Amino acid sequence: MLNKVVIFGAGLIGGSFALALKQAGAVGEVVGVGRSRTSLERARQLGIIDAVADSIEQAVAGADLILVAAPVAQTEAILAAIAPHLRSGTVVTDAGSTKTDVVAAARRALGGKIAQFVPGHPIAGREQNGPDAAIPDLYIGKKVVLAPLPENASADVDRVAAAWRLCGAIIHRLSAEEHDKVFASVSHLPHLLAFALVDDIARKPHADLLFQYAASGFRDFTRIAGSSPEMWRDISLANQAALLTELDIYTQRLSEMRELLAAGDAAGLEAIYANAQRARHDWIKTIEAAEKQSREGGD
Amino acid sequence: MLNKVVIFGAGLIGGSFALALKQAGAVGEVVGVGRSRTSLERARQLGIIDAVADSIEQAVAGADLILVAAPVAQTEAILAAIAPHLRSGTVVTDAGSTKTDVVAAARRALGGKIAQFVPGHPIAGREQNGPDAAIPDLYIGKKVVLAPLPENASADVDRVAAAWRLCGAIIHRLSAEEHDKVFASVSHLPHLLAFALVDDIARKPHADLLFQYAASGFRDFTRIAGSSPEMWRDISLANQAALLTELDIYTQRLSEMRELLAAGDAAGLEAIYANAQRARHDWIKTIEAAEKQSREGGD
Repeated sequence: MLNKVVIFGAGLIGGSFALALKQAGAVGEVVGVGRSRTSLERARQLGIIDAVADSIEQAVAGADLILVAAPVAQTEAILAAIAPHLRSGTVVTDAGSTKTDVVAAARRALGGKIAQFVPGHPIAGREQNGPDAAIPDLYIGKKVVLAPLPENASADVDRVAAAWRLCGAIIHRLSAEEHDKVFASVSHLPHLLAFALVDDIARKPHADLLFQYAASGFRDFTRIAGSSPEMWRDISLANQAALLTELDIYTQRLSEMRELLAAGDAAGLEAIYANAQRARHDWIKTIEAAEKQSREGGD
Repeated sequence: MLNKVVIFGAGLIGGSFALALKQAGAVGEVVGVGRSRTSLERARQLGIIDAVADSIEQAVAGADLILVAAPVAQTEAILAAIAPHLRSGTVVTDAGSTKTDVVAAARRALGGKIAQFVPGHPIAGREQNGPDAAIPDLYIGKKVVLAPLPENASADVDRVAAAWRLCGAIIHRLSAEEHDKVFASVSHLPHLLAFALVDDIARKPHADLLFQYAASGFRDFTRIAGSSPEMWRDISLANQAALLTELDIYTQRLSEMRELLAAGDAAGLEAIYANAQRARHDWIKTIEAAEKQSREGGD
């Protein structure tokens, strides 16, 4: 049981966390902090938070757990504002999509109190944002990656893990560096590629004609290019090194495929397409089995 | 009213065409031709075709309309087999995903009878294939691109267009070259990019770890990498020139984005992401409006 939980950012991610804890009967009071008073008032109307903080000092006082669920670029400023008021007994975690930059920011902002910060990343999202998008079951069956620091006490890591488990999530652990490499591959690069394709087509003089013939395959391929440009600008830059590495490897693969195509190498092209199809098919089978197990109450 | 329609390939595309014409009461008899006797018998059981042809000669005799709905690589052999038996009064069309290569193949195969061939491409598909996947409403509200030849009589083009309209489709016209440029951009390149990404990840030593964290965005982005490797090998090679052009332009865009990312140019990256997001948003609004109009009976 958590007596007091503070969320910085009462939108989709923070708001759904609060609603899930409340539904589990696992929290006494949820206090919201944010830049938009309107948004916080809306969160209070929706029952996501019980109170809007008057000050950071008041918000942080007596908190068991603080979740920073604001855009990653704001993490350092938020942690710096929390730092002077942070007492032992309070654990801070975050929901940022990148981790090495967040850890660096946390070390700068929290200094000697860094042991109280447990980096995290819930792998869940929806198309919508803001308090109205928050739902209590957003995290059911979803992964939450924790990237504990060497300084963290295991009890503090457990407190964060237990809160996410109460939301229905499955806890995974990676180092911050592993995390960023993994998500550069399976999330950040695909976003960049999808943005690049739509931008490429939109700049062509006959863009209207092209879009007219784009069909369901294009729609799915480019869905992630409908994501927030600001958020993905921040993620791209926050994970710059790993994203550059993945982009270079991918560009090299494209260049090899270009050679096969130019040479009319049917067998070479088919081998790549077939390897991809097989790998995706196996992956889909695995996640469908996991989803089935999750629905049946497994973990 | 068409007395006799012949479909080469009674799978998803050809079978759905036959079912739609039957549902519209627009055809007397549908005869099926194909390489797999089992598949044709299944199509007959399902009511897609009324008879399995004993020979090409018998199938083609007295046909009003012949649809070639087999893999594009087989088009030339099928047209060459049809050619000696083709009488005036019969119109031949196809459903291939590329058009300049099909036109070249048709000219070689049909020679002096080329005027009877009206190239076409229905823009519709499903994940499934084969006769069991065929449904009568596959083409409702979908585009069918016709790429008429200078030799075609307008009455023959109209016969093909009328048949597709009876299936619920909306007819568009492009030249074969325009068609292939458009689909290189909005379909063939995205397929190649999706295959490349999944193949890239599957080859990494830690592929299992990566796939474990791939989520819904990755799933949508790579859905088209679940497509048939043989089919996409053939399409890639059939549209080689246009696909190479689009791939080169895209690779150039990626290289420019790499420079922005390496330079930490936040504004430059955001401008590209925002342009893409806006263009996709406008496109989705347009297709949703068109879908609404189509449901309400417009054309």
